[in-house]
Amino acid sequence: MIDELSALRRIEEHFNTASDSVEVGIGDDAAAVKIAHGSLLLATTDSQVEDVHFIKSFISPRVLARKSVAVSVSDIGAMGGVARYILASVGFSADEDEDYLAQMISGFRESEQEFGVELIGGNLSTSDKIFLDITALGEIEPENVVKRAGACEGDLIYVSGTLGDSALGLTLLKQGSSHSDSRVLIERHMYPCPRLELGRQLAVNGAVTSMIDVSDGLVLDLGRITVDKGLGARIYADKLPLSSEYKSIASDYAEDFFELALSGGEDYELLFTAPENNKDNVSEIASSVGTDVTEIGIVTAGPAIEIVDSNGKEIKLKRRGFVHFN
Amino acid sequence: MIDELSALRRIEEHFNTASDSVEVGIGDDAAAVKIAHGSLLLATTDSQVEDVHFIKSFISPRVLARKSVAVSVSDIGAMGGVARYILASVGFSADEDEDYLAQMISGFRESEQEFGVELIGGNLSTSDKIFLDITALGEIEPENVVKRAGACEGDLIYVSGTLGDSALGLTLLKQGSSHSDSRVLIERHMYPCPRLELGRQLAVNGAVTSMIDVSDGLVLDLGRITVDKGLGARIYADKLPLSSEYKSIASDYAEDFFELALSGGEDYELLFTAPENNKDNVSEIASSVGTDVTEIGIVTAGPAIEIVDSNGKEIKLKRRGFVHFN
Repeated sequence: MIDELSALRRIEEHFNTASDSVEVGIGDDAAAVKIAHGSLLLATTDSQVEDVHFIKSFISPRVLARKSVAVSVSDIGAMGGVARYILASVGFSADEDEDYLAQMISGFRESEQEFGVELIGGNLSTSDKIFLDITALGEIEPENVVKRAGACEGDLIYVSGTLGDSALGLTLLKQGSSHSDSRVLIERHMYPCPRLELGRQLAVNGAVTSMIDVSDGLVLDLGRITVDKGLGARIYADKLPLSSEYKSIASDYAEDFFELALSGGEDYELLFTAPENNKDNVSEIASSVGTDVTEIGIVTAGPAIEIVDSNGKEIKLKRRGFVHFN
Repeated sequence: MIDELSALRRIEEHFNTASDSVEVGIGDDAAAVKIAHGSLLLATTDSQVEDVHFIKSFISPRVLARKSVAVSVSDIGAMGGVARYILASVGFSADEDEDYLAQMISGFRESEQEFGVELIGGNLSTSDKIFLDITALGEIEPENVVKRAGACEGDLIYVSGTLGDSALGLTLLKQGSSHSDSRVLIERHMYPCPRLELGRQLAVNGAVTSMIDVSDGLVLDLGRITVDKGLGARIYADKLPLSSEYKSIASDYAEDFFELALSGGEDYELLFTAPENNKDNVSEIASSVGTDVTEIGIVTAGPAIEIVDSNGKEIKLKRRGFVHFN
């Protein structure tokens, strides 16, 4: 059982080293912060709910806190912005103790360092199941905003990193797998790495026409920047970036080898479109920030997404989007 | 059971009429909004959790949605700011249907009108128990920020409206009371009215030295602007502003007549301090915005809060803060 008042005091102590841009930090009715002159404020919120997004016994409070921040700042990166501040609204059940809270605070502090954000506010609540709701605030110059809308027919489709590792890692975690490739894949599920620097550089250099982070699976999120905007897409399955671990065991854990790469969730990679003549530009930016980027398809007139194999034959998917933990 | 994708589509349809200051509204990775040049961004978050803050059968989704926004924007008012935007993160159990969602959307729209805010983002999640986590964003000129810290010994203590009605209303609600005064008191619990205009005018006119909204009970919140800052307070119980309904039945529902006014929660009135020579100024501002304000005590050297009756005798409280629904 965590005492709310002493917990708040503890949190205030840990997060009272605010930067100059924080006029009023944690511990008042609201935080008051500076936003760069001429910049737009970016705001997004995302939740992690026990038994829906995570199983308590599988993830430490430190890793959970870091992941909840990672997931939220990922959306700031997908707009091309710079993440600056977070607010954390947390629900604790009576089962959690002071140590659980202390570990969660460590996770938030870790994420402040890693993602360059400051925790400026939040809320503690009692709740049967644990939940973490993170609001991320960021800044962006109006001319650099990259929306989900903006792709054109003929644009090339790119994705960062590799796909499907997180979903495969989750499958392994649920099965208690001791396979030698499990560790890397489970880590990919536990420690998503939002591509903040890549998103920022793609935006600042005007290299892309639309962008989104892959949270609900490639096909579903691709639909949000193509089909939902009156377009379509053709994806070449053999071009999908897959890790060596994924390649070696994916077929053992899914009906179809490509299933988890196409429809698994929580990759938190960037999916974006760019005109063909920006090809070199995209490559240069990717290598300058040290993140692999792979061309995986092309924007079509639509209105559907087709996935083709190396023979040009269409692959039909049983499920197209991410199904949560339960 | 609410289908997440169709729900998101429905929400986007309802909230796509954004003002000029909203560059990117609902339906992208993050919202992008303008913040007035030279203003600070205010940010705060607050949760309503089923069976902790509310019982589902007692409150309609429309009223619940409005209340969750009211509670959050109240904190912006308590800083002296102007509430501008909200993000709503909602968890639904499998029991809720499309109609429940539709009613909740109505409540959010109602609160947009009433509090002058725009819903610019959010998140939908599955959850055993319903939760609503509302982030409110506002603006304020740096010179007008009113913090919890700032009171001085000798400052007068004021509170807006009346105290204890919400806590008494909650008690009546839980007991299924059919008392003739119940309706008004229960309504005070269901429909908190954050004093946004009062908070704003007090701040803009530099009339106050510290301010907070009363969410956890007068004594506990008073401690936050006095005892926590190395000061104390003397409160005159016979000066506490009480509604006629409270006066007529409070003794029947609490051990002590003043208990709910002093320690009940969810008043969402403004509690603030001002130097004695600002007395006329405070009165004028209160009457200009049409909100009653009552002087209830004085800031002392401390370090404790004492509550005295009309004979100057100290009243001892059994509980000093708000205990949630469960």
